[in-house]
Amino acid sequence: MINVIIAQSGGPTAAINATLTGVIRGLYGKKQVGTIYGALHGITGVLEERFLDLSSSCRENPVFLSKLTRTPAMYLGSCRMKMPEPEENKEIYNQIFSTLQKNQVGAFFYIGGNDSMDTITKLSNEAKRRNSMIRFVGVPKTIDNDLVLTDHTPGYGSAAKYIASSMLEIAHDTYIYDLPCVTIVEIMGRDAGWLTASAALARNKYNSTPQLIYLPEIPFHRGVFLKDVKKQLNISKNVIVAVSEGIRDEQGVYISAKTKTEDKFGHVQLSGVGKALEELVRREIGVKVRSVELSILQRCAGHIASLQDLMESDEEGKKAAELMLEGYTGVMPALERVSDEPYCYNIVMRDLIEVANRIRTVPREWINADGNDVTEDFLSYARPLIRGEIDMEWQNGLPVYLPIIHLKHGVDV
Amino acid sequence: MINVIIAQSGGPTAAINATLTGVIRGLYGKKQVGTIYGALHGITGVLEERFLDLSSSCRENPVFLSKLTRTPAMYLGSCRMKMPEPEENKEIYNQIFSTLQKNQVGAFFYIGGNDSMDTITKLSNEAKRRNSMIRFVGVPKTIDNDLVLTDHTPGYGSAAKYIASSMLEIAHDTYIYDLPCVTIVEIMGRDAGWLTASAALARNKYNSTPQLIYLPEIPFHRGVFLKDVKKQLNISKNVIVAVSEGIRDEQGVYISAKTKTEDKFGHVQLSGVGKALEELVRREIGVKVRSVELSILQRCAGHIASLQDLMESDEEGKKAAELMLEGYTGVMPALERVSDEPYCYNIVMRDLIEVANRIRTVPREWINADGNDVTEDFLSYARPLIRGEIDMEWQNGLPVYLPIIHLKHGVDV
Repeated sequence: MINVIIAQSGGPTAAINATLTGVIRGLYGKKQVGTIYGALHGITGVLEERFLDLSSSCRENPVFLSKLTRTPAMYLGSCRMKMPEPEENKEIYNQIFSTLQKNQVGAFFYIGGNDSMDTITKLSNEAKRRNSMIRFVGVPKTIDNDLVLTDHTPGYGSAAKYIASSMLEIAHDTYIYDLPCVTIVEIMGRDAGWLTASAALARNKYNSTPQLIYLPEIPFHRGVFLKDVKKQLNISKNVIVAVSEGIRDEQGVYISAKTKTEDKFGHVQLSGVGKALEELVRREIGVKVRSVELSILQRCAGHIASLQDLMESDEEGKKAAELMLEGYTGVMPALERVSDEPYCYNIVMRDLIEVANRIRTVPREWINADGNDVTEDFLSYARPLIRGEIDMEWQNGLPVYLPIIHLKHGVDV
Repeated sequence: MINVIIAQSGGPTAAINATLTGVIRGLYGKKQVGTIYGALHGITGVLEERFLDLSSSCRENPVFLSKLTRTPAMYLGSCRMKMPEPEENKEIYNQIFSTLQKNQVGAFFYIGGNDSMDTITKLSNEAKRRNSMIRFVGVPKTIDNDLVLTDHTPGYGSAAKYIASSMLEIAHDTYIYDLPCVTIVEIMGRDAGWLTASAALARNKYNSTPQLIYLPEIPFHRGVFLKDVKKQLNISKNVIVAVSEGIRDEQGVYISAKTKTEDKFGHVQLSGVGKALEELVRREIGVKVRSVELSILQRCAGHIASLQDLMESDEEGKKAAELMLEGYTGVMPALERVSDEPYCYNIVMRDLIEVANRIRTVPREWINADGNDVTEDFLSYARPLIRGEIDMEWQNGLPVYLPIIHLKHGVDV
């Protein structure tokens, strides 16, 4: 019988706790499994032995798992730690393996994005070198949807649903005045345009916005952008532009307005791309213009999570547990699509060595020839992922989530 | 028998179409009432005779009104037009009255905020001068909640629900890292702090954020703010600040960072207060800091509207219709609270002459002594207004709203 540790890492999503639920459901009550621990703040919780007994949370609170499924952000907290190579820092590996052995831990699950998959790969390789039987399993999540060898990643569908719904509501908002106006909506995604592309899902029979979509996959050209906007203003007074925070010019330089504050320090700071394009349109076209940054709400708005996303996240968590119980290590579950409509998929296994440290961007053929929109193929891909709503619990007008447990004491500043 | 025109004006809310529904329901089928028209883009739609036959929309589409109730922003479009005094521009009044007479319009309803109430006051006064029998009735709406002589305004509850829910989700998001961090959330409200104050509704048993709330009612002092933030960082690593876009220093100057762009033009522009405080904290305290602007989503997120707000908006619309049918002009319906818990209220009538061009701010006694938080009295006032959720209709993962009808053709730029 082995104890198990689960940890979460990277940025928050509305679905990462559904994955945690899935892993727990896949392990709980299995005769090979003893206590299920959660490590607080990712791998740093293992280094500092900060564990939470998840088995007893399940026993003591009958609604623990059902509430956990729809609580956004990381229930166990997160960290941003890049594991060094074993030859760079043997001590850290010694510490991790000795903590795991001391606690009779036979398996470690890491739910996260690219960096977490890298950590799991390094730990499972190190286990082989040490002839340790401890199994290391990754479970994917990232709103960025940029992991390779999986159709998409848990967390993406919910973020895309938030983005598309917000874009539709922004369309309703911005159409009200009978004046030409441009609205620039800045969306997350430094290296891959998946999130920004999902803005196109807001289009319907009456709404053709956002008319323009700029992804980091295509070099951005200010002059072409201004022409695009003018052309759209000729067609409709209300132009909405979805733009990725990560767009770069042909030299690979991020598009942002370099500004100097007018205080005594005269600091130079970079404003976001939304503000930069807002300023450009104001100066060069001279119509009413506004920029909106969807900001962190696109990754943490649990009340509008995609049911499809939560179900898949839970399933992938369970599959990870299964793979571990079957003896696998250094692997992760992945989604393999069977068909778009009806939407069907299989959950399969991938070797992490083929996944870690690679980035999957939006394929060129899913972006239109002008590089300012996505194609119908992208829409067919993304549409099923945002479908379905969860039956939220509300109290006093607010969504009910599991309490935040990883509260942090103050610091001297 | 008279025809009737309804128009909407000012900024969007999630509840203004519920008020439109209420007015229509209060008029439809009444023997005194002929055709119910909607004027497109507020009073400008009257000037340009751009009318929509709302009676036939109701007849032709059995779900028109139920869908209209939960469609955000203005179904009829809006305008930002300040009516001149009759002595300044007689022509515009002549035009409005002749259009109304030509179309046998006996009543005009204007759903909006302060400016709309001013318009209605001027038009009803002018009607008296002209011995016209046309009745002019105002129906309040504004997310800003700054109209006098009413407990609160339709639209406020839904915006407050969006703000409080978003603040709670931001708390879940920002607690995940075990690092000191400050998050500044910029909320709408240039002159009154009602919206920003509603951020306090996000607090619950496990969440004490936002720990600091700054309203435009209290002069803002950068030094005191930095001390407040440091004090809170001593208590918890995760500090969230809710700040109104309209805060000003003791000289009445808006708090914003004056920045100069580093392009060939060297334009000076004002960044929002959120960015300004973010920069201040980064420079003077040196912890991780981020600013989030809730932006236009706080007024147009129909999918998370407050049921209480939509019901009251509808009721006030119906009351406006009743008042007109009883022969009143130059009036508006208003809410008079009976008790907080259970939440009970009456809908009463107010003379617009007492309402127009006045602003109701958050009372000093509802703000704490330090001027950086709200009191329990405010919370008791606001709590009932965000309660209740609507049963949204979804299709393909997106909220279903009535189509936008006031689409606009392009322009030459």
